[in-house]
Amino acid sequence: MQLGRFKRYFPILDWARRYDGTTLEADLVAAVIVTIMLIPQSLAYALLAGLPPEVGLYASMLPLVLYAVFGTSRALAVGPVAVASLMTAAAVGELAARGTPEYLGAAIALAFLSGLMLLAMGVLRLGFISSFLSHPVISGFISASGILIAASQIKHLLGVSANGKTLPDIVTSLVENIGQINLPTLVIGVAATAYLFWTRKGLKGFLEARGVPPRLSGLALRAAPVSAVLVTILLAWALGLDQHGVRIVGEVPRGLPMPTLPPLDLALWAQLAVPALLISIVGYVETISVAQTLAAKRRQRIDPDQELVALGAANLGSAVSGGFPVTGGFARSVVNFDAGAATPAAGAFTAIGMALATLVLTPALYYLPQATLAATIVVAVLSLVDLGAIKHAWAYSKADASATVVTIAATLLFGVETGISAGVGLSILLHLWRSSRPHYAVLGQVPGTEHFRNILRHKVVEAPGILQIRVDESLWFPNARFLEDMIYDRVAANPSLAHVVLNCPAINFIDLSALEALEAINERLRDAGVALHLSEVKGPVMDRLVRSDLITHMTGNVYLTHFDALSALAPELTGATVRDLRRETAR
Amino acid sequence: MQLGRFKRYFPILDWARRYDGTTLEADLVAAVIVTIMLIPQSLAYALLAGLPPEVGLYASMLPLVLYAVFGTSRALAVGPVAVASLMTAAAVGELAARGTPEYLGAAIALAFLSGLMLLAMGVLRLGFISSFLSHPVISGFISASGILIAASQIKHLLGVSANGKTLPDIVTSLVENIGQINLPTLVIGVAATAYLFWTRKGLKGFLEARGVPPRLSGLALRAAPVSAVLVTILLAWALGLDQHGVRIVGEVPRGLPMPTLPPLDLALWAQLAVPALLISIVGYVETISVAQTLAAKRRQRIDPDQELVALGAANLGSAVSGGFPVTGGFARSVVNFDAGAATPAAGAFTAIGMALATLVLTPALYYLPQATLAATIVVAVLSLVDLGAIKHAWAYSKADASATVVTIAATLLFGVETGISAGVGLSILLHLWRSSRPHYAVLGQVPGTEHFRNILRHKVVEAPGILQIRVDESLWFPNARFLEDMIYDRVAANPSLAHVVLNCPAINFIDLSALEALEAINERLRDAGVALHLSEVKGPVMDRLVRSDLITHMTGNVYLTHFDALSALAPELTGATVRDLRRETAR
Repeated sequence: MQLGRFKRYFPILDWARRYDGTTLEADLVAAVIVTIMLIPQSLAYALLAGLPPEVGLYASMLPLVLYAVFGTSRALAVGPVAVASLMTAAAVGELAARGTPEYLGAAIALAFLSGLMLLAMGVLRLGFISSFLSHPVISGFISASGILIAASQIKHLLGVSANGKTLPDIVTSLVENIGQINLPTLVIGVAATAYLFWTRKGLKGFLEARGVPPRLSGLALRAAPVSAVLVTILLAWALGLDQHGVRIVGEVPRGLPMPTLPPLDLALWAQLAVPALLISIVGYVETISVAQTLAAKRRQRIDPDQELVALGAANLGSAVSGGFPVTGGFARSVVNFDAGAATPAAGAFTAIGMALATLVLTPALYYLPQATLAATIVVAVLSLVDLGAIKHAWAYSKADASATVVTIAATLLFGVETGISAGVGLSILLHLWRSSRPHYAVLGQVPGTEHFRNILRHKVVEAPGILQIRVDESLWFPNARFLEDMIYDRVAANPSLAHVVLNCPAINFIDLSALEALEAINERLRDAGVALHLSEVKGPVMDRLVRSDLITHMTGNVYLTHFDALSALAPELTGATVRDLRRETAR
Repeated sequence: MQLGRFKRYFPILDWARRYDGTTLEADLVAAVIVTIMLIPQSLAYALLAGLPPEVGLYASMLPLVLYAVFGTSRALAVGPVAVASLMTAAAVGELAARGTPEYLGAAIALAFLSGLMLLAMGVLRLGFISSFLSHPVISGFISASGILIAASQIKHLLGVSANGKTLPDIVTSLVENIGQINLPTLVIGVAATAYLFWTRKGLKGFLEARGVPPRLSGLALRAAPVSAVLVTILLAWALGLDQHGVRIVGEVPRGLPMPTLPPLDLALWAQLAVPALLISIVGYVETISVAQTLAAKRRQRIDPDQELVALGAANLGSAVSGGFPVTGGFARSVVNFDAGAATPAAGAFTAIGMALATLVLTPALYYLPQATLAATIVVAVLSLVDLGAIKHAWAYSKADASATVVTIAATLLFGVETGISAGVGLSILLHLWRSSRPHYAVLGQVPGTEHFRNILRHKVVEAPGILQIRVDESLWFPNARFLEDMIYDRVAANPSLAHVVLNCPAINFIDLSALEALEAINERLRDAGVALHLSEVKGPVMDRLVRSDLITHMTGNVYLTHFDALSALAPELTGATVRDLRRETAR
């Protein structure tokens, strides 16, 4: 038991035992491909978060190793990702100016806090908190983030200065500074963007049409950003473009990250608590989605609670090695999977690759134009934008589609935190609204059977003096009031009524508010000389009801089937139909 | 249609046509009794709200007349009530100092804003917003408010100065100022409190034992606060107690309220928006509960949306006549009902009674000790405190009971707004938590029948290679992830699986998040060579599903009954049992 629990927290103990040459080879190949992809991305996402480039490299080492120890997904690639970087910039930008030690300190504290929260949620098994984020909200939020991120990078492609955390602010700022456009930057930026778009859309087909095997052409696709990086570094160096106004990455400190302590400033932590929670939850939801998708393809299983622990450890690791918030990246994980990663060790090997790159390649990055990094970001994030999802959602549910639209609009107009909060609030409100007016049917008996159906939809026989109602929804606080209103209305409208039978097969639970509503209904019907009965109450619901006062005080009875109820309350009616039924069967 | 709509907004058009001498007499008697009760209460609740006493009188005239025009309850008594007065004090106290014109202006603006909100909710039929308040939260909030109100009045009973909006603050403040105790005040306060408690508990029995008819002894009970008021006024006047440190009400302006405009200050309105919404919703929930209870006793009906309109009109009326937020009072409405009020006209007559009192009695109120008013408040609000509800709730649902406890604790420790917000947040969180881990059962066939039951509870036959699952909950975003995790887990654990059949009779709706989860499940199961089927999907759910891609892409089928599904997927199995079934029937 103790060992099982221990092993639950260290999935590495499970897969490491069976590790052999085949898995090693598969993991090494995947690690090389992911490393090639991760070098430019880690620099670019640090830039997006407003941090020095080396912070992106630092966030791509220790977190990957820790995920390999604690993670349950065989293919998840952890590291800096676009949306979390945008959220980091939004949160930290409120508290400090870019380029200051306070800004970096706050980013590190954010990773630390997010790590603690994820770890706590994992150990306490609170993963359900992520269920607050409905698909429409997540989908809208990711799309809007993609648009915001792309907009925020335009300044780097043009070589102008601009800022803002909302779309109107960014656009205004760009328009105001449009006069600053730097031609060499524009050329590099547009060319790199066009090249990267083309590699995404056409390179693979182009190569395969020329006889290059799919595996190699796939690798070429992954290496395209690195090739853009190399070519533009060479151009910038050869032409001395930094002398012509092209912003370059500049000095990147060589060497591995040093152990770092996040600033122990409680006021800062309090200010970062909400952003850290949002980053944690958004990151977790994305992580678990991609991990599930990839695991299901090979019939592997992942443990959602342990994923919280692993992601928490990865973020704590990022913080103590001077990095910023990390999470499971969708694109990189798919590449890792396609490249054949067999175990989480592939991530650890990627970390070694990143460490080597940091030790060896950093001097070569000096001349890397920021416009090239911006181009890789723009091309990567535009694949996040999926406005077609709105149309798709609209066809199924207008309520859900409106949650997407509101999340997108609020994110673009008011920023990431307001956007996601508005989406969560709206989706809960919509659910309460839907629950507050459930579908219900007044029932009548299908002649000659023991079945009862909606009197509006079927040719059925109503029992005089008996109101038979089926509510197609669990009874809980949003519809407790509805239930009272609806029954009182019908009782007031029908003075000859003597019985109300509530048919309960669709009721999965009854909360205390609804129980009290039922108790009130029972009392008020009693005052009006009407008896309340229940029929077809489900087992778990009945288990609870017997612990309440309702059953002891109820003026009527609980019947196993609705037919039993009608047989008891209107024997002359059901008796006739039962006889009919027998005759029917006898024929 | 147009007329019907018009009539809906003016229920007075309905009952006024049938008004006659009998109803007039009944309404007049009720109005006299309620007026006697309302005079001291209106002064006391103004004091509680931190407002001059005449504001309580003003809030007891026009609002009652407007409710009589727009209200649908025959017995509801609108006016100042304890909880809304406490909430007014908490909201307005944030913005201005007691006794200043700004304080009064803010209280008037609060009534105006609350009136607008209620009216808007009524016209737009947004009454469901009140469903956010579950019974456990309301119950906890009312109990905690009762405790806070009683604690806030102790200073008046002792004659010390003290303040604070939370229980710890009030207690600390009282302890610090305990040295200021004024003996005459203490004597009046304790005596009035003891007298009023005794009239509540013992007066009626005492009189009836001495042969006083119940109707008269009931009237004596209602008049007890007025008698305390009279006696203490006489004492204070005769002994000149104001010269001995007893705080008296002092000058109350004689005459009817003047038309007032609420301050047109948008910044003020913005600050009052959240408190106004909370007061509106809490007031509405209380109003509708008591109105429903009383209407049901006489098989009358009330219109919840029109009650919003009526309560909105009453609050606007209160604001434009210099009053503060009003709502339907529980105790006064019950008295009104018991006294025989036949139509809303009883409320209008009460307003006339209050106007006469304002014109005639105000000079007599000069010597009224504040301690007497505090005693009426303390005795009235302690009946609101119902801590036994926690125990009662705990027996039925620990989750609901914890919502009550958290609401009480947060209200006492952090004030009314935090308290109610914490309660609402927690009850929604608890619901999501419950929904996120629904009850589900793996099914097997009851031998020889077409029934399928939980394999853990019943002796049933499982079909090899087929996973049959029944989820006892609607599918929506909190459990979309659960559904995926649960199915992938079971598929990963059972390599010989070829079919998954989801049995859906308990699923009342499927939102977009759950639909996308089902689509993902379908795809991932397809990748793993497993087909997904549905059985017993409800009509309204199926109506939506056919508009989605799920049905077209589904690897399996939708079956009308679960038995149909098993007959198709494992004919050798069900065939045998069908034959058994026939043999069984033939016997």
